[in-house]
Amino acid sequence: MVLQYDGGDFNGFQRQRSHPSVQQAVEEAISLKLQRPVTVVAAGRTDAGVHALGQVIHFDSDSLLPTDFHYRINSLLPDSIAALSCERVDDDFNARFSAKRKTYRYDICMSKIHAPLMRRYCHICVYDLDLDAMRAACAYLVGEHDFRSFALSESVKEKNTVRTVYDAHIEERDNSIISFYITGNGFLHNMVRSIVGTLIDIGRGRFSLGDMPCIIDAKDRRRAGKTVSGCGLYLVSVEY
Amino acid sequence: MVLQYDGGDFNGFQRQRSHPSVQQAVEEAISLKLQRPVTVVAAGRTDAGVHALGQVIHFDSDSLLPTDFHYRINSLLPDSIAALSCERVDDDFNARFSAKRKTYRYDICMSKIHAPLMRRYCHICVYDLDLDAMRAACAYLVGEHDFRSFALSESVKEKNTVRTVYDAHIEERDNSIISFYITGNGFLHNMVRSIVGTLIDIGRGRFSLGDMPCIIDAKDRRRAGKTVSGCGLYLVSVEY
Repeated sequence: MVLQYDGGDFNGFQRQRSHPSVQQAVEEAISLKLQRPVTVVAAGRTDAGVHALGQVIHFDSDSLLPTDFHYRINSLLPDSIAALSCERVDDDFNARFSAKRKTYRYDICMSKIHAPLMRRYCHICVYDLDLDAMRAACAYLVGEHDFRSFALSESVKEKNTVRTVYDAHIEERDNSIISFYITGNGFLHNMVRSIVGTLIDIGRGRFSLGDMPCIIDAKDRRRAGKTVSGCGLYLVSVEY
Repeated sequence: MVLQYDGGDFNGFQRQRSHPSVQQAVEEAISLKLQRPVTVVAAGRTDAGVHALGQVIHFDSDSLLPTDFHYRINSLLPDSIAALSCERVDDDFNARFSAKRKTYRYDICMSKIHAPLMRRYCHICVYDLDLDAMRAACAYLVGEHDFRSFALSESVKEKNTVRTVYDAHIEERDNSIISFYITGNGFLHNMVRSIVGTLIDIGRGRFSLGDMPCIIDAKDRRRAGKTVSGCGLYLVSVEY
């Protein structure tokens, strides 16, 4: 099932004891519809505040569900979550482990003062950004690299931090918004947001373009830029 | 002073006893900065949920304020309000009564299912809309008309309900969003939102294009479409 959601209403995808999560809301809706407890597995366990345009989840069902099942649970979901489509999959399909490629988008709004109508869905950047330098820096990300410099330190101990990025580019949109798109075979915790923080540092001249390959090579989180907030990040799509 | 705000956080512009208002938040910020009580007057007293891209307010000051005064109060305003600019005006300037033209925008998102990331800032319309019919209907709005059919009934008794509309048109934006723009010398309470409700009825075929002039001529609120929600409405700009 493909989900869209406004992450601002949740403390992340993953179910937690005392905070609202997307997983809890979705499991409650499906469980209510099927009249039995259901556990869902998501392609990407988005962090607090992170949105999804095309999150993919799977769950097991004893009975054959109709292909318009998503329509039937939309009325049971909060306004902040929509089920866009669903399909039957093989028993060995796993939304998380069968994923081949994921695409994330990060929206940056360039504004000298705070932007009330953007604040829920963008990172507000008060600096002028050199998009050409940021675009050139994106090229260094593409390929198979050890992205340890862009991973939450406590989550990487001993873990394999090599990932392949297939595409990384920047699009200019209207209203002074730029969107950074990145597609890869997987992402470390906080990886997209710390890459964006680093790109902003390059765009505003704090880092030079040539710093990007050095930061990647350093395999040291302290070398990269800061982790920007979750509200500008969107899980766009998952490919299997 | 020109303000931008997210109306979703307020129960309208106008100060109220028990609900948060834009006026209260702005008056508190300016009063704190000037260290004396200040009352502001707005060009358009936007309703609950209605946003502003370029609301204009005025207030009196005994002292000459710096022209970057707006920067100095931004840090005192909530995230949901930004002061974009300010200038000194003549003593006889009144943000409300000196206004010559106001432009409003109404955003409609065409989506078969609810749209989590749009729901705060658009009206979600599940019907397919005939934009050509809606565009043609816009033409009937332009000119000097008695817009009583589009006014909140209890607000119009004996009052002059004649207004001049200078421009009314529809723009298609990306993500299945259409924006209705209307510029006039003034607007009755709920006028833009009931015009949009009527245009949607024409777009989905509930009303025909030819019904628009009849609805205007009827001067009867019951003939027009329903008042759509405030969250899709933006006060774009005010001209003096």
